[in-house]
Amino acid sequence: MAASKNIITPVETSNSPWSGRFSEPVSALVQRYTASVGFDRRLADYDIQGSLAHAQMLSAVGIINVDDLAAIRHGLGQIREEIRNGEFVWRTELEDVHLNIEKRLTALIGDAGKRLHTARSRNDQVATDIRLYLRDSIDGILSLIHRMQHALLDLAGKHTNTVMPGFTHLQVAQPVVFGHHLMAYFEMLKRDAERLTDCRKRVNQLPLGAAALAGTSYPISREMVAKQLEFDSVCENSLDAVSDRDFAIEFCAAAALIMTHLSRLSEELILWMSPSFGFIELADRFCTGSSIMPQKKNPDVPELVRGKTGRVNGHLVALLTLMKAQPLAYNKDNQEDKEPLFDTVDTLTDTLRIYADMLTGIRVNPLTMREAAMRGYATATDLADYLTKKGLPFREAHEAVAQAVRFAAESGRDLSALALPELQKFSPLIDAEVFCVLTLEGSIDSRDHIGGTAPEQTRAAISRAREWIDSRETR
Amino acid sequence: MAASKNIITPVETSNSPWSGRFSEPVSALVQRYTASVGFDRRLADYDIQGSLAHAQMLSAVGIINVDDLAAIRHGLGQIREEIRNGEFVWRTELEDVHLNIEKRLTALIGDAGKRLHTARSRNDQVATDIRLYLRDSIDGILSLIHRMQHALLDLAGKHTNTVMPGFTHLQVAQPVVFGHHLMAYFEMLKRDAERLTDCRKRVNQLPLGAAALAGTSYPISREMVAKQLEFDSVCENSLDAVSDRDFAIEFCAAAALIMTHLSRLSEELILWMSPSFGFIELADRFCTGSSIMPQKKNPDVPELVRGKTGRVNGHLVALLTLMKAQPLAYNKDNQEDKEPLFDTVDTLTDTLRIYADMLTGIRVNPLTMREAAMRGYATATDLADYLTKKGLPFREAHEAVAQAVRFAAESGRDLSALALPELQKFSPLIDAEVFCVLTLEGSIDSRDHIGGTAPEQTRAAISRAREWIDSRETR
Amino acid sequence: MAASKNIITPVETSNSPWSGRFSEPVSALVQRYTASVGFDRRLADYDIQGSLAHAQMLSAVGIINVDDLAAIRHGLGQIREEIRNGEFVWRTELEDVHLNIEKRLTALIGDAGKRLHTARSRNDQVATDIRLYLRDSIDGILSLIHRMQHALLDLAGKHTNTVMPGFTHLQVAQPVVFGHHLMAYFEMLKRDAERLTDCRKRVNQLPLGAAALAGTSYPISREMVAKQLEFDSVCENSLDAVSDRDFAIEFCAAAALIMTHLSRLSEELILWMSPSFGFIELADRFCTGSSIMPQKKNPDVPELVRGKTGRVNGHLVALLTLMKAQPLAYNKDNQEDKEPLFDTVDTLTDTLRIYADMLTGIRVNPLTMREAAMRGYATATDLADYLTKKGLPFREAHEAVAQAVRFAAESGRDLSALALPELQKFSPLIDAEVFCVLTLEGSIDSRDHIGGTAPEQTRAAISRAREWIDSRETR
Amino acid sequence: MAASKNIITPVETSNSPWSGRFSEPVSALVQRYTASVGFDRRLADYDIQGSLAHAQMLSAVGIINVDDLAAIRHGLGQIREEIRNGEFVWRTELEDVHLNIEKRLTALIGDAGKRLHTARSRNDQVATDIRLYLRDSIDGILSLIHRMQHALLDLAGKHTNTVMPGFTHLQVAQPVVFGHHLMAYFEMLKRDAERLTDCRKRVNQLPLGAAALAGTSYPISREMVAKQLEFDSVCENSLDAVSDRDFAIEFCAAAALIMTHLSRLSEELILWMSPSFGFIELADRFCTGSSIMPQKKNPDVPELVRGKTGRVNGHLVALLTLMKAQPLAYNKDNQEDKEPLFDTVDTLTDTLRIYADMLTGIRVNPLTMREAAMRGYATATDLADYLTKKGLPFREAHEAVAQAVRFAAESGRDLSALALPELQKFSPLIDAEVFCVLTLEGSIDSRDHIGGTAPEQTRAAISRAREWIDSRETR
Repeated sequence: MAASKNIITPVETSNSPWSGRFSEPVSALVQRYTASVGFDRRLADYDIQGSLAHAQMLSAVGIINVDDLAAIRHGLGQIREEIRNGEFVWRTELEDVHLNIEKRLTALIGDAGKRLHTARSRNDQVATDIRLYLRDSIDGILSLIHRMQHALLDLAGKHTNTVMPGFTHLQVAQPVVFGHHLMAYFEMLKRDAERLTDCRKRVNQLPLGAAALAGTSYPISREMVAKQLEFDSVCENSLDAVSDRDFAIEFCAAAALIMTHLSRLSEELILWMSPSFGFIELADRFCTGSSIMPQKKNPDVPELVRGKTGRVNGHLVALLTLMKAQPLAYNKDNQEDKEPLFDTVDTLTDTLRIYADMLTGIRVNPLTMREAAMRGYATATDLADYLTKKGLPFREAHEAVAQAVRFAAESGRDLSALALPELQKFSPLIDAEVFCVLTLEGSIDSRDHIGGTAPEQTRAAISRAREWIDSRETR
Repeated sequence: MAASKNIITPVETSNSPWSGRFSEPVSALVQRYTASVGFDRRLADYDIQGSLAHAQMLSAVGIINVDDLAAIRHGLGQIREEIRNGEFVWRTELEDVHLNIEKRLTALIGDAGKRLHTARSRNDQVATDIRLYLRDSIDGILSLIHRMQHALLDLAGKHTNTVMPGFTHLQVAQPVVFGHHLMAYFEMLKRDAERLTDCRKRVNQLPLGAAALAGTSYPISREMVAKQLEFDSVCENSLDAVSDRDFAIEFCAAAALIMTHLSRLSEELILWMSPSFGFIELADRFCTGSSIMPQKKNPDVPELVRGKTGRVNGHLVALLTLMKAQPLAYNKDNQEDKEPLFDTVDTLTDTLRIYADMLTGIRVNPLTMREAAMRGYATATDLADYLTKKGLPFREAHEAVAQAVRFAAESGRDLSALALPELQKFSPLIDAEVFCVLTLEGSIDSRDHIGGTAPEQTRAAISRAREWIDSRETR
Repeated sequence: MAASKNIITPVETSNSPWSGRFSEPVSALVQRYTASVGFDRRLADYDIQGSLAHAQMLSAVGIINVDDLAAIRHGLGQIREEIRNGEFVWRTELEDVHLNIEKRLTALIGDAGKRLHTARSRNDQVATDIRLYLRDSIDGILSLIHRMQHALLDLAGKHTNTVMPGFTHLQVAQPVVFGHHLMAYFEMLKRDAERLTDCRKRVNQLPLGAAALAGTSYPISREMVAKQLEFDSVCENSLDAVSDRDFAIEFCAAAALIMTHLSRLSEELILWMSPSFGFIELADRFCTGSSIMPQKKNPDVPELVRGKTGRVNGHLVALLTLMKAQPLAYNKDNQEDKEPLFDTVDTLTDTLRIYADMLTGIRVNPLTMREAAMRGYATATDLADYLTKKGLPFREAHEAVAQAVRFAAESGRDLSALALPELQKFSPLIDAEVFCVLTLEGSIDSRDHIGGTAPEQTRAAISRAREWIDSRETR
Repeated sequence: MAASKNIITPVETSNSPWSGRFSEPVSALVQRYTASVGFDRRLADYDIQGSLAHAQMLSAVGIINVDDLAAIRHGLGQIREEIRNGEFVWRTELEDVHLNIEKRLTALIGDAGKRLHTARSRNDQVATDIRLYLRDSIDGILSLIHRMQHALLDLAGKHTNTVMPGFTHLQVAQPVVFGHHLMAYFEMLKRDAERLTDCRKRVNQLPLGAAALAGTSYPISREMVAKQLEFDSVCENSLDAVSDRDFAIEFCAAAALIMTHLSRLSEELILWMSPSFGFIELADRFCTGSSIMPQKKNPDVPELVRGKTGRVNGHLVALLTLMKAQPLAYNKDNQEDKEPLFDTVDTLTDTLRIYADMLTGIRVNPLTMREAAMRGYATATDLADYLTKKGLPFREAHEAVAQAVRFAAESGRDLSALALPELQKFSPLIDAEVFCVLTLEGSIDSRDHIGGTAPEQTRAAISRAREWIDSRETR
């Protein structure tokens, strides 16, 4: 989780770290163990939003009167300010964000505050709060994905003619342009955005009104609350509404995929920056030095991103384990849903933001990329295709080229450095035009269909990508 | 995975299980270790579908001639028959399903068979095969989800007036009707179906044409192949197309949620069938006896379902771990995507099918359920609401009822068994009408809003559910 | 993690939670993202311990002089005090606990402070710190395991004659005594303790001296440092020493098993406290009430323990994912090892402590347990054994009893309530003595071998357990 | 799992893969779903071992007579032969390996066969079988670990003077010798072996005698059976004995660490074989070619090993999820323990074997390694140490060298290529001897302490390693 949130109290770094905790009385330990206010106060603003909508509905249907409503609005407004200004005093003995706020409200406005909890329970209240929080978080993450996609498009746009080796099995396979390579990550993020958008639909359902588990005997209007809070609709079963945490799991699964994609890009940035590759350099501010080796410049940020993939995968497992075999309806286990979810949101948010900026600070070494593409007989497939187009069945062409490569490798030369008669020993179908297909540019230009690496196609892909992203941002 | 697929060869159950494997020559071990035909032949039919569409396109754009196309069609048709009839000889030394089929095709039709692999690679071929397989699997699973939902609706429809205790923390909370409780699972499966439908969109993209990683120099038409194979569109980046396994991970995450839901229902069935609960009985054919205890009837099927949740969660972790930090484009690691995916599909398929049937064999004991609902002061909330409606702030009503419950518990009686004067000691607002709200039926009927447990609302929910499911099935 | 550690800064609960973070300048974000001092300052005391031993060795071998050593000792002593008193100012721009302390040391004592980092690197320094921390944590956890075992033994000792149903498949299987049931958890914790003790051996190896990755050119004595810090020995390969995190993973795997055991006991406590079972009651201080249902008493603590199993499993997955496919030697990814490890230690520590106390607050309802044991034909196996001892092959006896049970069930009676002639219909071998074996006590007393449930055996098991635990505590 | 074991039946590759399974009658599906004989027959030999020891004890204590014992021995001997010869007919309707064998035994020898199940249950029987299987598997894996360690030692022994760049953050850090680098993996495997040896102690406990869950009323001798089967002792609590699966989880956690280590080595082999590194080449038989790119030689085996890490991590998660919150004693869920465990054993066995052989086929390119070590200012730390030894505080020396590196980098030279006056600009302490410490050999030779990379130390480490391994193998 974000480093700043783990404030360690002095006692824990004392000489005998155990003694401090051991002397804590059990009752205090139980209180701390069961209370959630230490982390769920992050939901405070959403809790207030939900309470305001609930109060307005209670008043509209006649459960509370307009004076009570006015008092509640005023009181919650003041509490919101107190929280924003850091003046609000959170108390562990009041268990959670809900009771802390309610208690303060009653202190401020008296009986009206006690009436706010009519026709609801903490079970449906917390479910509502988390959904409001997660909906907001998804919207933020979507905009960060788009920001990172813009950065990818800008970088790709500069490198639609920069040749690099395309790898499979980390062996040189065929030349590609760097812009095309980058666009693979655009596609991944595009799926990520679509997946989050789908997930958002299932987040954006209102549980409030389910009360403890069975609904309430008050004449509530759940639709009114849903509309007020901009939920798409209401959860249609009260038992499900209070016990469902699917949305958190679905979000964490989508997050794990995003981190997986970023771990792949990070792996590549780290490789490319290693001196044996030397394809790129990261801006200094995303790197650090060494406390012992004065010459080092380490790609810390991509390494951390790669490492943080574990954290997010772990949170997904935590939530799946949490929900396994829980009987209906609400169980206290569910309090454990928050920290993994919050930390997943924080990790994604920070990582996407930092990545978008890091991409703008990449310095590319086109010459080194090009040399690497020359090293691995990257145009061998082109020679095979050349022969196939002249009538040789593909499998036979493949075999002929394999022999040519072996011959070239033994003499330490590239295919394009062989003389025509040397090449012709492997197939009489070869003529002088072959040297066009054996160049890196010849190879690249020839992959000229949708999805292919030809510079023209890469530019077209970038255009389509800009249109897609525009269409989403203007929604 | 499904038991029938793990055929153990005799050597492994020999006296010295290790010696057998240890004497295997390394070359054979390498071949077995790297070959995938042992499991990927499950893709054979999809491989042939893909090859037929590819060949037709090759012919349409003039890369192969019509005679070759005819020969390929004839040859692949024959191979399909051979496989269906179990006559096809699979060879480990040919590595995978693709080369096994290609080799046989060439044996049958000669050079035309060698031309089939023009303009494609095994990298885009296998990605296409898995997507075809998974699309088909998702469609099958969706129809099984609907089947299970029908079974839930039928059972719920019979129990819209059957009162049971609603639990939170496995303590009696408030009375609900059994039909309402079951409908919570309908909602979960509804989300599951929608999630799979969303996932299917991302599965249904055509990778073919990406070739090894960079596209091909042949004038292919990817759109033609996509149309032929009913893909929604083509993968827009070749590097991404051959290395993307998001669809498998997204599917497994959705599957893990389905299993999580079924693990919850299983837990409840096991609890309810335990003699201390005694709420239901499962039909004998879903239970087994004991080899030592003659009186036992064990709910084996729900127990296994609960256990199989672990298997599916594990497969999800396997795939996420697999993809973490893989550089582009294709790496051999990806061969490991198949077994977890196949086993997830098998587990889901069998489990949903068996569950749909098991639900029809549940015998409910309404009397036992009702007695259990009487045991836990389930209508205490109703008393609090009653007081609140008379003007007491909710928090004070809550406190008054808590005292009434303590009093009743000390004398071993339910709230409804207290005399009016006894009740009035806790609040002067109580009058004779209170006994209406203290009955189970009074409590249930009062939760009369969308999502609430009132029988009328439960019936309405069942109606809406039937409409939803009809609208999906007639698509 | 422990609730108190997640202090949320006001900005995050502001009205637009995203805007706050979005306006953070990237350089500050990078600093926060890469810094670890937010969580690794928990290691401060261990860092100082390690530095003191390192300095003493540097002086002993002549790398620094005695004045420097004295200054370092004095400076670190003062820093330790400042940290304990909460006066130390931690700075994010100094990245981690090591640089924060070193900088302060240099401010206090000048050049001598700069010499402390001679012949070491942060790579071997942090590895040493974590091992010291984890060794200490393991010792604390071991003593908490023993404390919980004592609580189990005390409770078991009171219930060596308390009969309850033994369950398989949550169906009544055979009667057992409650003390015997509890002793199953003693066995689990015994294995846990032994596993942690084994793990401790691999934790207790000294990495210091590996420097950045290759060792150092100074004439250091690693054995001297190891002895000073009470390490069993030194890590024998410098590359391994700085990149190894096995010990953290092995610990988390052991922790996951401990939580799994506690999740099983928690599940049972929750079941047993559910009114349908009614076997036990937990002391009020481990339960909470409901905000809406006045009658509720919820077993919050065991529910949370069950839920926290997910958290620990998740941390294990996080660490395994972290280390997968990392090339040697140190990579920044490894910074991500700390938070999962710290939170695992905290979760275990709190949970074991609270559990030990909770066990002393359990009130048992022997009568309800006994009634439940009567309900499920728990002595059917005894009847089968009775017949087998009279010469009937076991499989035939099993069948005869199955029929007797069916007969008894149809008339709603227990086996022991059948008349002798009724019983004899199922086997002529039955005589009047059968009624001894059909009683609960008869059944229990007969399981009289090591590991069996006979009260005598249960008492013997408790005795052996006390001896084992004594032998460990006096080590 | 090992590919060869997943035999796909024709119906599953039929045109409509779903229809085949859908037409299966539910009763057959239930039978297949609940039966385990498809995979647990792998335990057959261990089941027979256990039955023989059980029968001998039954006879020794007088529960069966000697004729019965003789018949049982004869019958089980014949069955063992039938299984080895592949003649045994396994029947799904007999559920599991135990009933299949018992039924056949009864068919062969009549009533004596029916008496074999006296005083035991399938619950303790299967627990015994798995432990026997796992003990045997651990012994096999230990010997494979030693085999791989021998291969590492042989390769390391040839390269105690081969200089390569030591990396941190995949940046060149300091020179090391290749033999030293390899020895890091020896250390990892050493811990793995010790961890498995510790695990074996907890595997090697006898559950038999626990019967269904409570022990048995027969006068059995568990110690006799334990001795016969070479168990270290008996499980001391019957409820724990039948429900404990810790040993499988502990084994899988140890296995996940082994795979993690091999994934790291695999990652390095893949990197080193990539043309940009070019440090090594793998023998052809561990690589494969491409179906489309004739020039490719892909390191398939290390890639698969890296990928299979996911599979083993997944199995660990599956087992942890399986056991979470299971009430005592035996539940059918536990049947799901076998496939993850078996596949983990198979994966480890194959992978270790193939790796031991693959290491013998590595061709090293010392020149390329050396050139890479020259590229990254690998001796900068040595210069800093040189200055520190001359009296400069380390932190100041570090800063001076950082400036020297910057200067050298700007002129494209290594530190050792700077002239003395150039070097002296960064510190007047530098004199002509500096050039000794700036060479790769100078740097390496200076790291001359236990764990350091000096060739002498590397050779000593190899010697100690050979002694350790010898001491284990002769046990």
